[in-house]
Amino acid sequence: MSGSDAPETERSLTLAQLQQHIQQMYGRKDQARGAEGTFLWLMEEIGELAAEVRGDNHAALQAEFADVLAWLATLANVMDVDLNQALLDKYGVGCPGCLKSPCACSDSEKP
Amino acid sequence: MSGSDAPETERSLTLAQLQQHIQQMYGRKDQARGAEGTFLWLMEEIGELAAEVRGDNHAALQAEFADVLAWLATLANVMDVDLNQALLDKYGVGCPGCLKSPCACSDSEKP
Repeated sequence: MSGSDAPETERSLTLAQLQQHIQQMYGRKDQARGAEGTFLWLMEEIGELAAEVRGDNHAALQAEFADVLAWLATLANVMDVDLNQALLDKYGVGCPGCLKSPCACSDSEKP
Repeated sequence: MSGSDAPETERSLTLAQLQQHIQQMYGRKDQARGAEGTFLWLMEEIGELAAEVRGDNHAALQAEFADVLAWLATLANVMDVDLNQALLDKYGVGCPGCLKSPCACSDSEKP
């Protein structure tokens, strides 16, 4: 990844860096494809994640999480959504239901 | 969020902090629910994201991105996957197809 000398195993990506990295790699193609086409790619990766959730190959499972996260960041880029701000706005102070951490919602509401 | 005095608007979450924050909020419930039940919740949020992708409410769209990201982090926690490592392993040096950034794959392979 550009802009850092840290080895791959030591780097701690922020959500903003994730979106920037995806933008640099795929931004031109992503804008041309648009939101609806990008959503379909995200769904394809969700399906592949489902297959690995059922399986027992941890490396393959990890790779599918990476793909889903990358396509979610792609969709956020295409739709001009800041994932960091989204997370902080909704979950920054704790569970959106009870505003506590750990969550104190009843199991009937949030099992 | 614990461990920081920065205001919500200035904080830059890492993927590791995202997973830790979700773990602190929901870890007990998440472990009890397990991977399959958690995947269903992720799918419910994917559906709500789809609805907002079609809509024109940017704040609602942003909130659904937060939910999908939170449930993806939840599933990663339940399945013992490190999202930061997953991203670096697969996308750290560039596009997994061509190993370049920007991606130089042909549009027939990665449109």
